Amino acid sequence: MSDKSPDIARRKSDHIDIVLGQDVGFAKLTTEFERIRFIHNALPELSLDEIDLSAKLFGRAIKAPVLISSMTGGPHHAEGINRHLAEAAEELGLAFAIGSQRIALEEQGSAGMTRELRKLAPSVPLIGNLGAAQIRSEEGVDLARRAIDMIEADGLFIHLNPLQEAIQPGGDRDWRGVLKGIERLCRAGLPIAVKEVGFGLSAQVVNRLVGAGVCTIDVAGAGGTNWARVEGYRGKADEALAAAFTEWGIPTAKAIHDARLMAPKATLIASGGIRDGVEAAKAIRLGADIVGQAAATLGAAVNSTDEVIGHFTRLIETLKVTCFVTGSSGLAALRQAKLEAQT
Amino acid sequence: MSDKSPDIARRKSDHIDIVLGQDVGFAKLTTEFERIRFIHNALPELSLDEIDLSAKLFGRAIKAPVLISSMTGGPHHAEGINRHLAEAAEELGLAFAIGSQRIALEEQGSAGMTRELRKLAPSVPLIGNLGAAQIRSEEGVDLARRAIDMIEADGLFIHLNPLQEAIQPGGDRDWRGVLKGIERLCRAGLPIAVKEVGFGLSAQVVNRLVGAGVCTIDVAGAGGTNWARVEGYRGKADEALAAAFTEWGIPTAKAIHDARLMAPKATLIASGGIRDGVEAAKAIRLGADIVGQAAATLGAAVNSTDEVIGHFTRLIETLKVTCFVTGSSGLAALRQAKLEAQT
Amino acid sequence: MSDKSPDIARRKSDHIDIVLGQDVGFAKLTTEFERIRFIHNALPELSLDEIDLSAKLFGRAIKAPVLISSMTGGPHHAEGINRHLAEAAEELGLAFAIGSQRIALEEQGSAGMTRELRKLAPSVPLIGNLGAAQIRSEEGVDLARRAIDMIEADGLFIHLNPLQEAIQPGGDRDWRGVLKGIERLCRAGLPIAVKEVGFGLSAQVVNRLVGAGVCTIDVAGAGGTNWARVEGYRGKADEALAAAFTEWGIPTAKAIHDARLMAPKATLIASGGIRDGVEAAKAIRLGADIVGQAAATLGAAVNSTDEVIGHFTRLIETLKVTCFVTGSSGLAALRQAKLEAQT
Amino acid sequence: MSDKSPDIARRKSDHIDIVLGQDVGFAKLTTEFERIRFIHNALPELSLDEIDLSAKLFGRAIKAPVLISSMTGGPHHAEGINRHLAEAAEELGLAFAIGSQRIALEEQGSAGMTRELRKLAPSVPLIGNLGAAQIRSEEGVDLARRAIDMIEADGLFIHLNPLQEAIQPGGDRDWRGVLKGIERLCRAGLPIAVKEVGFGLSAQVVNRLVGAGVCTIDVAGAGGTNWARVEGYRGKADEALAAAFTEWGIPTAKAIHDARLMAPKATLIASGGIRDGVEAAKAIRLGADIVGQAAATLGAAVNSTDEVIGHFTRLIETLKVTCFVTGSSGLAALRQAKLEAQT
Ligand SMILES: Cc1cc2nc3c(=O)[nH]c(=O)nc-3n(C[C@H](O)[C@H](O)[C@H](O)COP(=O)(O)O)c2cc1C
Ligand SMILES: Cc1cc2nc3c(=O)[nH]c(=O)nc-3n(C[C@H](O)[C@H](O)[C@H](O)COP(=O)(O)O)c2cc1C
Ligand SMILES: Cc1cc2nc3c(=O)[nH]c(=O)nc-3n(C[C@H](O)[C@H](O)[C@H](O)COP(=O)(O)O)c2cc1C
Ligand SMILES: Cc1cc2nc3c(=O)[nH]c(=O)nc-3n(C[C@H](O)[C@H](O)[C@H](O)COP(=O)(O)O)c2cc1C
Repeated sequence: MSDKSPDIARRKSDHIDIVLGQDVGFAKLTTEFERIRFIHNALPELSLDEIDLSAKLFGRAIKAPVLISSMTGGPHHAEGINRHLAEAAEELGLAFAIGSQRIALEEQGSAGMTRELRKLAPSVPLIGNLGAAQIRSEEGVDLARRAIDMIEADGLFIHLNPLQEAIQPGGDRDWRGVLKGIERLCRAGLPIAVKEVGFGLSAQVVNRLVGAGVCTIDVAGAGGTNWARVEGYRGKADEALAAAFTEWGIPTAKAIHDARLMAPKATLIASGGIRDGVEAAKAIRLGADIVGQAAATLGAAVNSTDEVIGHFTRLIETLKVTCFVTGSSGLAALRQAKLEAQT
Repeated sequence: MSDKSPDIARRKSDHIDIVLGQDVGFAKLTTEFERIRFIHNALPELSLDEIDLSAKLFGRAIKAPVLISSMTGGPHHAEGINRHLAEAAEELGLAFAIGSQRIALEEQGSAGMTRELRKLAPSVPLIGNLGAAQIRSEEGVDLARRAIDMIEADGLFIHLNPLQEAIQPGGDRDWRGVLKGIERLCRAGLPIAVKEVGFGLSAQVVNRLVGAGVCTIDVAGAGGTNWARVEGYRGKADEALAAAFTEWGIPTAKAIHDARLMAPKATLIASGGIRDGVEAAKAIRLGADIVGQAAATLGAAVNSTDEVIGHFTRLIETLKVTCFVTGSSGLAALRQAKLEAQT
Repeated sequence: MSDKSPDIARRKSDHIDIVLGQDVGFAKLTTEFERIRFIHNALPELSLDEIDLSAKLFGRAIKAPVLISSMTGGPHHAEGINRHLAEAAEELGLAFAIGSQRIALEEQGSAGMTRELRKLAPSVPLIGNLGAAQIRSEEGVDLARRAIDMIEADGLFIHLNPLQEAIQPGGDRDWRGVLKGIERLCRAGLPIAVKEVGFGLSAQVVNRLVGAGVCTIDVAGAGGTNWARVEGYRGKADEALAAAFTEWGIPTAKAIHDARLMAPKATLIASGGIRDGVEAAKAIRLGADIVGQAAATLGAAVNSTDEVIGHFTRLIETLKVTCFVTGSSGLAALRQAKLEAQT
Repeated sequence: MSDKSPDIARRKSDHIDIVLGQDVGFAKLTTEFERIRFIHNALPELSLDEIDLSAKLFGRAIKAPVLISSMTGGPHHAEGINRHLAEAAEELGLAFAIGSQRIALEEQGSAGMTRELRKLAPSVPLIGNLGAAQIRSEEGVDLARRAIDMIEADGLFIHLNPLQEAIQPGGDRDWRGVLKGIERLCRAGLPIAVKEVGFGLSAQVVNRLVGAGVCTIDVAGAGGTNWARVEGYRGKADEALAAAFTEWGIPTAKAIHDARLMAPKATLIASGGIRDGVEAAKAIRLGADIVGQAAATLGAAVNSTDEVIGHFTRLIETLKVTCFVTGSSGLAALRQAKLEAQT
């Protein structure tokens, strides 16, 4: 496995450059957030500054229902990105999930994924990350423990990305035993969360995850970054294959709605193409507890902690204003706000 | 409060320039007037010149059901704009609402908002304007009286613009007590009308206004000028926040329809993106008594009285022709004209 | 009235140039023919050359259900246009309607509208044309007789164009008594047909026409030439007025369908934006007996008889092929062909 | 008949050049595959490399449910194209249908359509091709036998292309007796398949074919190559006629669905604008046993066997990945995969 690592490192680096520099969205498929609208309330009878957005994740309080979602970076970028994100998360009181720890675990301690990260973000939920393929076998439990330990994480994301793996050369093609592996982690009492990477978790998949004991789920739906297109940019070989999946996936808005129906008690995270605080509010209205963002934060993350803080400050202010002009005093009220179809 | 005035003055000036020079419409959201069409009547059996459009507002007769809607101008523009609009209103027999009197009231008599205005438009309904924040406290009644007095107004608009305030730096963020303040004005026997500024009044808001004693309501719906975008042009700080609301609001056509259901006896004004006399006719068909225009008249208003007269002459002729080719002898008949969905 | 004639002559000339040279279509409104499709029949079991398209109009047989629709030309163009169209109609066995005879009647014999025309087209239905305003008064019957006489016509179109008149400076603004005037013509036993000019006759108007005794009706629906736009090109004064009606009218497909419901026994002509033989087939399928074309033939009409023949030969061949690939042996079978919504 | 051959040869050559070099798609009409989507399954619990795509056609096993569809080439291209396609079909274990054998039969042995072809593709289904007009008369049976014999075919396609024939100068215009001719071939025990060429077979036509004894049907629906447009490029004479049929035909997705309803036991082939393995999967999900491609393979076919192999290798891998991310272990499972409307 470790002989694959240089390749993986290069791939992860490519990802960052492609996501930042190329058009990697879907063609016509969208998150479908644009299909619903809130009804403007011109008489809010609220004070904007008293709207309360506080939430919780893996037992820790956060000041707004926002998660900085998992992004791997490769050797050139990862350390800086992780530092900027961790510092911003701590400053604003947001949850922070790091990218895949696979290389780091295989080669020990690289990419800024050490306990130093926890020191930068001591008070917020910090979440590790492994791929489905890594936890299929019995050794999965041990690996997951090491991943959590490595950064003193509050939780661990297992990402399910079968299409991304199928498209990329050398990706994992055998996905038998993944559900059993997840169940094993849950039984071992580990704080597991499961996510896709941008094609969405279906109602049926959410159902099976809940059955396996998973309590925290991130739908990571379609409409934002299309990983098939990202892979398509990386070399002629896969272009036609990747192109066929340009419209693949479950739109984020639909995924959240369905997931909530299937998992009424789970902590539900909505990510996948969420652009701003109005869309974050729609995600919460549709059933999400927490809203995650990855690609949209990448530009700031590469640059500085301050840019990341600025980015999320605006997102949170927008979410607050959305509460305001729907007449919602907080997240619970927002979940009751009236919605209309935007036809 | 008065130390804010220079800022406010600059802001108002910016508004005029931005509305005239930039694209400040919505992206996909429309007034939804394009979704309905009248059925052409090739056999009107009418004389076009005998179609009667006369109406009433605040007890005064007008020759056509048209209101020149509230626009503030800032020091450079306001006086000229107000003069041109007042003279045109008088000439054509239309209702005229001036922009916010806040600065004028705070600094006494500026911006051409004096009894001179009333002298220019002695015979038509003249309507003052204050923001919701100004009338929240008990002093609201006194302020409203002074606003009316200042121009010998027939009525006073209170504008509800929570989103605009939330987006602009230094805007009013505490909207508690607004409804009570409005109720106080009504109880005091003042001729109050309530309006939005382009995001619309919802059915529920209209309902609460009627409950508070408001008899004249302008939905000022979405689909025309988007104030979030206008504010977005005014400086980097708010751009992302403003951009998130590019599709916010209640489409004017829908707002009118819903408002009429909720307020069968109110005097209902339709404004917000109404472009021409065919759309004015649709607004009337959907339930409006009077149709208001602001942004579309601004270009003419800045230039001369004659241009304003020309603009509204065409609007009224178009409205009349619409009555003609729907076989409607006047506004009452127009309200019975058949509509179809334009799919 | 006759002092208006030079103006009218200029106007008609302008029309030709504008229709040939400018974009005078609707913006989004269409004929709605594109909303339905025939179901392809890959097993027609027919001989294409034995498909029979013969029809009748005003008692005369025609070889295909096609009418060359009324077009006025003004002094420069009219004579040539009328000659080319008459010769082509005779050659192909099609019906031919000339443009408005108003100027010719007022000034006696101009614009090639004489019995010479009948000599060019002795065996096909030849149809005269007058406007609604001309037949409002009691003298209408006499005028109509003279119009028919002037070219030995088989029938006479009365065109209802209230919107066109309302938009054009100096147009007829008093439309009272039109229906009575039409009834008077019918009672006098004249072979009357009634048409719009491109905004369509509604179900209700068709109903009133049938009640007045009209047996031949041309819906002349919307989706082709927009006369408001044509007038809009003719001078600044009317531009805003004209622009407001860019989407006005009853789509031709809908107009035919509704007219047939209202007038099951009338001879129904479909015109208004019909582009080719497939659309002609759709019009017939929706209830038309005859299909009319004006604007689409104008380019050829200005040039030569041969071009007109070529144009209609292709239209008729396309109509025949449409019968073929829907498995229809003729017009009666075509009226039973299956349709689907094209969504 | 044989005096037409040089013309036909030129026409076929033109076809290749036009299909490769011009835009010959439909304007708005599509295959309608984009209207449905699979639901992403992030937990496939499968091994991608164990997904089995094997199928059968005319009694022979193929490794994937793919047919290289009939294409005629004319003298310049045909031999090379046929060789490349035959070699690729053999290499990948796919079915291969050659283009029309009409010229070859009339002039004996031209265009690479000899038993040499069978030698290049000894183990896969090889299918001959004749037009409907060739088998209308009693001699049809003999001609069909010779066509099969000529290449030792496993089956014979009869193509129904009435619209293509009607549009092209000199095309067959008498289609009486075609169904009887097909029935005669079936009764004679010949392995007959019937197809369109890109306008689709309707439910009603499929029904009649099944009644005539046909067991293998290729819908060859609309949304890919539009033959009316191809013919339209070939000379001024037909342009207007061809243009009228730019939106003609039965969308492939709809055609498959309807055909399967009508012919539950037939071997159903889906072709017509299928672009990639995801669309192939949708066709199978909608009822197809086998998926055919013609135009999309033409570029590779003109060049080399290797390019054809590359093309289909990617198509098949994409189909396999689609099975994978819908959690389908093979074609039977894929036929049960959940579909959603993509609105
Ligand atoms: C550059 C980049 C790297 C990513 N790396 C990972 C990863 O290592 N592990 C993972 O679970 N998800 C990864 N993701 C997926 C995100 O966590 C997220 O689920 C997905 O991008 C959808 O959210 P978004 O549209 O806000 O970006 C990555 C995303 C990006 C843009
Ligand atoms: C330049 C400008 C200034 C405005 N100022 C005010 C104001 O001071 N008070 C107010 O109630 N509305 C104000 N409005 C809002 C209008 O009165 C109106 O409600 C809104 O613009 C929708 O109508 P429209 O689309 O026809 O412009 C202003 C609008 C414009 C374009
Ligand atoms: C140049 C031109 C002149 C026309 N003149 C007349 C006319 O004099 N009388 C009339 O009844 N209709 C007139 N029409 C209307 C046509 O007869 C027809 O009803 C209308 O154009 C719709 O058909 P089309 O879309 O095929 O052009 C004219 C149309 C054109 C294009
Ligand atoms: C260049 C070319 C030549 C063709 N020649 C034939 C033919 O000779 N016989 C036939 O039945 N179909 C012929 N076809 C039609 C195809 O077999 C197929 O039914 C149709 O093109 C739809 O599939 P596609 O969209 O994948 O191309 C031809 C298609 C092309 C592109």
